[in-house]
Amino acid sequence: MKRIFEINPWTVVTHDLNPEDKRLQESMTSLGNEYMGMRGMFEEVYSGDTHQGIYIGGVWFPDKTRVGWWKNGYPLYFGKAINALNFVKADIYIDGHQIDLAKNEFQNFEVSLDMKHGVLKRQFTVFGVEVQVSRFVSAAFKELADIHYTFTSVDGYKHNIRFDASIDADVVNEDANYDGKFWQVLDAGNDVASSFIATQTIENPFGVPQFTVVARQSFIGGEKHGTNRGTKEVTDNFDIEVPTKGVVNFEKRVIVTTSRDYDSLKETIDAGTALTNKVLENSYQEIYEDHAQEWLKRWEKADVQIEGDDAAQQGIRFNLFHLFSTYYGNDPRLNIGPKGFTGEKYGGATYWDTEAFAIPVYLGVADPSVTRSLLQYRFDQLDGAFHNAKQQGLKGALYPMVTFDGIESHNEWEITFEEIHRNSTIAYAIYNYTNITGDHSWLDGDGAQVLYSIARFWADRVHYSKRNNQYMIHGVTGPNEYENNVNNNYYTNWMAKWVLQYSLDHYDEINDKQKAKLAITDEELVQWQDIVTKMYLPEADVDTKNGKKHIFVQHDTFLDKDLTPIADMPQDIRPINQNWSWDRILRSPYIKQSDTLHAMFYFPDAFTEEEKRNNFNFYEPLTVHESSLSPSVHAILAADLQMADKAVEMYERAARLDLDNYNNDTGDGLHITAMTGSWLAIVQGFAGMRVRNDELNLKPFLPKNWTKYAFRLVFRGHVLEVTVDKEGADVQLISGDPLTINLLGKQVTLTR
Amino acid sequence: MKRIFEINPWTVVTHDLNPEDKRLQESMTSLGNEYMGMRGMFEEVYSGDTHQGIYIGGVWFPDKTRVGWWKNGYPLYFGKAINALNFVKADIYIDGHQIDLAKNEFQNFEVSLDMKHGVLKRQFTVFGVEVQVSRFVSAAFKELADIHYTFTSVDGYKHNIRFDASIDADVVNEDANYDGKFWQVLDAGNDVASSFIATQTIENPFGVPQFTVVARQSFIGGEKHGTNRGTKEVTDNFDIEVPTKGVVNFEKRVIVTTSRDYDSLKETIDAGTALTNKVLENSYQEIYEDHAQEWLKRWEKADVQIEGDDAAQQGIRFNLFHLFSTYYGNDPRLNIGPKGFTGEKYGGATYWDTEAFAIPVYLGVADPSVTRSLLQYRFDQLDGAFHNAKQQGLKGALYPMVTFDGIESHNEWEITFEEIHRNSTIAYAIYNYTNITGDHSWLDGDGAQVLYSIARFWADRVHYSKRNNQYMIHGVTGPNEYENNVNNNYYTNWMAKWVLQYSLDHYDEINDKQKAKLAITDEELVQWQDIVTKMYLPEADVDTKNGKKHIFVQHDTFLDKDLTPIADMPQDIRPINQNWSWDRILRSPYIKQSDTLHAMFYFPDAFTEEEKRNNFNFYEPLTVHESSLSPSVHAILAADLQMADKAVEMYERAARLDLDNYNNDTGDGLHITAMTGSWLAIVQGFAGMRVRNDELNLKPFLPKNWTKYAFRLVFRGHVLEVTVDKEGADVQLISGDPLTINLLGKQVTLTR
Repeated sequence: MKRIFEINPWTVVTHDLNPEDKRLQESMTSLGNEYMGMRGMFEEVYSGDTHQGIYIGGVWFPDKTRVGWWKNGYPLYFGKAINALNFVKADIYIDGHQIDLAKNEFQNFEVSLDMKHGVLKRQFTVFGVEVQVSRFVSAAFKELADIHYTFTSVDGYKHNIRFDASIDADVVNEDANYDGKFWQVLDAGNDVASSFIATQTIENPFGVPQFTVVARQSFIGGEKHGTNRGTKEVTDNFDIEVPTKGVVNFEKRVIVTTSRDYDSLKETIDAGTALTNKVLENSYQEIYEDHAQEWLKRWEKADVQIEGDDAAQQGIRFNLFHLFSTYYGNDPRLNIGPKGFTGEKYGGATYWDTEAFAIPVYLGVADPSVTRSLLQYRFDQLDGAFHNAKQQGLKGALYPMVTFDGIESHNEWEITFEEIHRNSTIAYAIYNYTNITGDHSWLDGDGAQVLYSIARFWADRVHYSKRNNQYMIHGVTGPNEYENNVNNNYYTNWMAKWVLQYSLDHYDEINDKQKAKLAITDEELVQWQDIVTKMYLPEADVDTKNGKKHIFVQHDTFLDKDLTPIADMPQDIRPINQNWSWDRILRSPYIKQSDTLHAMFYFPDAFTEEEKRNNFNFYEPLTVHESSLSPSVHAILAADLQMADKAVEMYERAARLDLDNYNNDTGDGLHITAMTGSWLAIVQGFAGMRVRNDELNLKPFLPKNWTKYAFRLVFRGHVLEVTVDKEGADVQLISGDPLTINLLGKQVTLTR
Repeated sequence: MKRIFEINPWTVVTHDLNPEDKRLQESMTSLGNEYMGMRGMFEEVYSGDTHQGIYIGGVWFPDKTRVGWWKNGYPLYFGKAINALNFVKADIYIDGHQIDLAKNEFQNFEVSLDMKHGVLKRQFTVFGVEVQVSRFVSAAFKELADIHYTFTSVDGYKHNIRFDASIDADVVNEDANYDGKFWQVLDAGNDVASSFIATQTIENPFGVPQFTVVARQSFIGGEKHGTNRGTKEVTDNFDIEVPTKGVVNFEKRVIVTTSRDYDSLKETIDAGTALTNKVLENSYQEIYEDHAQEWLKRWEKADVQIEGDDAAQQGIRFNLFHLFSTYYGNDPRLNIGPKGFTGEKYGGATYWDTEAFAIPVYLGVADPSVTRSLLQYRFDQLDGAFHNAKQQGLKGALYPMVTFDGIESHNEWEITFEEIHRNSTIAYAIYNYTNITGDHSWLDGDGAQVLYSIARFWADRVHYSKRNNQYMIHGVTGPNEYENNVNNNYYTNWMAKWVLQYSLDHYDEINDKQKAKLAITDEELVQWQDIVTKMYLPEADVDTKNGKKHIFVQHDTFLDKDLTPIADMPQDIRPINQNWSWDRILRSPYIKQSDTLHAMFYFPDAFTEEEKRNNFNFYEPLTVHESSLSPSVHAILAADLQMADKAVEMYERAARLDLDNYNNDTGDGLHITAMTGSWLAIVQGFAGMRVRNDELNLKPFLPKNWTKYAFRLVFRGHVLEVTVDKEGADVQLISGDPLTINLLGKQVTLTR
C-alpha cells in the first residue's frame, strides 16, 4: 500500500514529485474519452523513469504467439493494445535552459486531476517562470486533445521560451517478454497552421487489418519560426515571450483520425485537416466548456456522495471517473480494456469483466443504450466465438477470454481452453440487461443468436458420466485462477445449467426470424432439459467450529486439501502470487477471487440465506483477494448477510485499490474493470439494490463510520437520488414519471 | 508410417534420393561417439531441403525463457542442444561442374549405414566420376571424425576435381519458436598441413559457462593450393586428378577439442594441433580398424539375433546402434539426450528416460561402469536438484525434467512443476543398479545422498488430508502427459511411498560418513513411516464385459470420464495430439503412455498376476501410445501376462518406430531414449528376464512368426548367450565363472 495523492473529494492532487513514484503518478492521472486516452506523463522532457503512453481505442496489433511447446488449438496471435504515436511531446527551453524536472530545481509543484471536469492540471516554477498546464481529451469532440499552457514571470524579468512541439511515431511497447515497435510512417507534412504524421501498424501474417492513425497538431499563440521533419517525427518550433507582468498563453490542439472511421489514407488525412480547421474556429474557453459540460452531465446521473469518510468519497469518484474515461458507450466497436488507456499490460480490449462487473454499473448510472452497445459488441463478434468453439472441436459459440476482434488471443491453455465459465457471463449480461431495463427486445432479437449459441456450446461441452448417471464438466479453470484444470467446478456447472434453463425458459419468446436462423431441433431441447435435470453439482457437509454445515464444493476434490485458513498462515507469504511457486498456489486451498460465491453474487435470490451464509463463512477465510475483482463481490455478499463490518472492510479495499496502490502494480496502469466494484458495493451492497419482477428494491444501511451517503440511480427512464444517513433512507425522484419501488420491504410511490 | 530404407540385417540402405524424405534420411543415418555426432547430411552442397546438424556432447546454450505470462518458480533459461560448427562442409567441382545432387543428374546412388562397423557410406556417379564416401566419428579416438573419398573415372576420361573443404561456424539452430545464432569466432588459422576455427558460445546472463570448441581439419591426398579465411569460415582448396583408370583417394580428418577438456583457449587450440599431428601418424586403414574393432566389441556383448523376421532383426540392431552412438559411458558429465546427435528438438541432455529406459538396457549389454557413470551424473548434479526443490519451496532434492546442468530448464508449469514422478525414477535406478549388479557400494556411498534427498522431497511434498486421515499428493502430472494437474496419480503416489519405504529399509546400511552428511533426524524417520502407512492409493471396482474387476485408479476422478475405448472411436482422430485441441485431450480418457501400469513395469513382482491383468485389460484399450516410450512397456507386461500376440504387436511398434517413421516426426531426429524399448521387450518381455534375490531368472517364449532369437547378456561379470527357438530355450556361458540361473522355473548351472 502506498498513497501518493492527497485526500480530496473531487481532485487527485499531489505537491510532490517523487521520481520513484513517477509511473504511479502517471497511471493515476490518466485521461480518456473512449476514443483515445493517455497516461499522465509530462509533455516536456523528463529524463527520469517514466512510461509514456498514448492509446487509441480499437487500434491494436496481433503479435505472434510464442510459447515453449505448441499445443493444438492455441491462438496464432496475442492481441496487443499498442502504444500509439506520442502527440503531446514537447521540448521547452526557458532562456536557453531545457525544462527537465528530473534535473531542474523547481518550486510550487502540483499535479492535480480535476475529476469533476475531466482536466489534468499541472504547475511548477522554474528558471523564473511559473508554468501552468491544463490537458484534456475532449468528451464532446472525440478526435480532440488539448494542451493549454500559461507562462508567468515570477522574478520581474522578461523571459524567452523556445517551445518545440512534436508528434513522435518512434514509440516502443512496454511488455513483459518482448520488445516491439509496431508502427511505420506513411506520410507527414505541414502547412503554416499545422503539421501532421500519418502512421500505420506494420504488416502481420494473420489477416488482421492494419490500422492507420493520423495526428495533426495546431497552435494558438507563440511565434512559429519553422517545422522540422524527421523520419518518424514532426516538430513545430515556437518562440514565446513572457512579459515582466501578466501572463502569456500557448495552446496546442491535436486532432486524431483513424482508418477505423475513414476508408483511405487520403480521407483519413483530409478528415484530420477538416476537423483541425473546424476546431480552430472556436476559442479555448468554448472547447473547454463543451468538454466540461459533458462531464457534469455524467456526474448528474452517476455521482455518489459520502460523508464522514473523505477517502471513501475520493475513491468512488476516482473509480467512476476512470471508468467513464475508458468507455461511455459511444462506439459499439469498442469495449472496456482491463487497463483502459492507462497502460498496456494484459493486452486485449475485452474480458469477461465487462459483463460481470461493468455492465451492472452502467445499467445503474447511464442510459441503457450504453449497455446495449456492449451487448451489440458481442453479437458483432459472434463469428469469432463460433471460431473459438470450433478450435476446441465444439459446437456453438465460445466467447474469448481476451480479444479485440472476437477471436481468442490469450495463449495459456489453462485460461484460453479452460476458463470457459466466461461464456455463461455473456448470457448473464443478457439476463441482467433484460431484468433491469425491462427491455426484452435484445433478448428476443440479436441477443437470441448469442444466448442460444452459448447454450449449444455447453450442451456439447458437458459429458455424461456413466457411473454417476449425471452430466459433468471436466477440465476447467473456475473464476479462482489459483486452481487449474479442475473437474466439476461448482460455479461453472451451476452457470452452465442456468444458461440451459434460461434458454429453455425463453425459447417460446424469441422471434421467428431468430428461431429460423438458429434452427434448434427438438432433440436439442430435449437434451438441454436432460442436462438441466442431471447436471452434477458437488456439495457436502463440512465440520466447522459451529458444527456441521452443508456447503457447495468448489470442485470435486477441493475438500481433500489442507484447509488451513489464510489468517492462520504466516503474514509474509502474502501476496502468495509473489511469494509462492505456481504449483504450491495450485495445490493450496487459497482462492484468488470469489468462485462458488460468484453465483450468489450474480443470483442472490437463487440461494437461501443459510446457503449464502454457510458458503460465505466457509470460503471467505480461504480467499486472498489477489484479484482486483474479488473484494467488491465479498462486500456485496457480506452486506446481504448483514455482516456490516466485513462489508465495509471489503468496500475499502475495492474503492482505493489503485489510489492506495494496494496490489503494488498500479504503476503499470489502473485496474479499470475492477473500478466498478466500489459502486457495486455501495449500491448492491450497502443499499441492497435488486430488481425483482420489474420492481426496484432497496434495503439500505449506513456503514458505521459514515454519517451519510447518497447516490444517483438510473432506472427505466427515471433518475433517483437515494440518500442514507443516521435518520434512515430517503429516495427522491429527480426526473421521470412517478414510480413505485420497494424500500426496506415497503412499497413507496415516488413523485417529483 | 513411411519406410524409405531397405530391410537388411546389418545395414540401413537406400538407393533412392527422394527430396521430400531428405531429413528422414539424414536423421536415420546419423553417427555419434558420445563425445560428438552428426546427422547424415551430405558434405557437399545440397540445395534442396536439408537439416545440417553437428552436435558436441555437453555443449549447450541457456536460451532465455519466454512465456506469455510469467509464473513464480519458472526456470530462467531453457537449455538448448546447439548446432555446432559444420566441419564436414565441402564444395566439390568435377571439371568445373558443382556437385549438387538436388540439381545434377546422377546414377548408382546409394546411402548405407554399416551398423556393424559404425560407418556411413555413400556413392553416386556424376559428371563421369564415381564418388564413394565413407564417414565415421571414431569410437576409439573421441576427438576424431574422418571422411574418406574415392573417385573413379567411369567414362575412360581423366577428370579434374576441385575440392574446397571447410569448417563453417555460421550455423543457425532449428527450433520450433525462435531462431538463434549461438556462436562467435574467437580465432582461426592455418598452416601447410591443416587449418582451424576456434568458436565460443555467445554470452548469457545466467552464469552458465561459455563453451569453446576448436575444430581443425587436415588432409591426405590431393594437391593443396591455398586456404581462404572468411569471418566465420575457413576453407582449404585442393585439386584432385582422377586418372582414366584406377582410383584416387582423398581423406579429410577433423579433430574437435573443447573447453570441457582444456582450460584456456590456447590449450584447447594446442591440444587440437597435437591430436591432429598424432592422428596423421596413422594410415586411414589403421584409424578405421581401431574404430571398427571398438564397434565389434560392443556387439560381442550386446548383439541380438532374430530369425524369421528381418524387419525385426534390423530394428533391434538399429536401436542399439544409435543408443551406443549417443552414449557408452565414457564421460560421467554426459547423458542421453532424447535426440542424441540426430537433431535439436526438445532441448536438454537429460530426461527421466535415462533412468526409466536406458539404464535397464545398459545394465544388460555393457559393463556396470556405464550405468555407474549415469548414476554419478545425478550425484554430481545434486546441487541443481536442491535448487529445483527450493524453487518450489520444498525440502530435499527434485531432479529436473529437462536439464544440462542439474537445474530445471523446461518451462511449462504442468511439466516442470508437476511431472515430479521423475524424481522417484532416479531412486528406482539406484535400486535397479544395486539389484542387478549386486554392487551395494553406490547405494551406501554417494547414492545415499541422492536417495535420501529424494525421500526428503516426497515427505515435504505430500499433504495430510484431515477428512481422509491419509497422505495425498495433489497437483501432479503423471507419466500420462495427456492429463495435467491431477490429484493422487496412482503411479506418483505408489512410487513416492516406495521411495520412502526403500529409504527406511536401507537406512541402517548406509555408511556413517553419508549419514552424518544427511543428518536425518529420528522425527523424519517416524514421519516417513507414517506416510508409508497412510499414503492414499486410489482403487475401485469397475464394470467390465467380464464382470466387476478391481483396479488401481489412475487418479482421483479418472473413472468419472467417458471411458469409451479408443478402438470404438473414429480412426481419423489419431494421433489425437495432431487432431484434438489440448483441452479435449486432457478431459478424454486416452492415455499417452503407461501410467498406473508403469509401476508394474518397474516392479513386476510387487503386484499379483490378477492385479496386473485387471489393470492391463482396463488401461490398455484406453492407451494411444503417442509417446515413443509406451509400446515397449506394454510389450513387457503383455508378455508377463502370456498375451503373446499383444506383446509382439507392441514390440513391432517399438522396434521400428523410427525406421518406419511411425509418429511422422523422425525427420526432426531419432527417438534415442525410446530405442531402448525393443531390447527391453525382447529381454524383459519375450525372455522374461528378472533378477530376484541375486539370481538371474529367464522365462522365454518364442513369438509366433519368429523361428529363433538369441541375445547376449551381461550379468555380474559373466556374458551369457540366450537362444530361443522352436525347440526351447538354451543359455550358454560365453565368459566368466560358472553361474547358476533360474531358467523356466528350474535352477540351471552354466559352465563354459
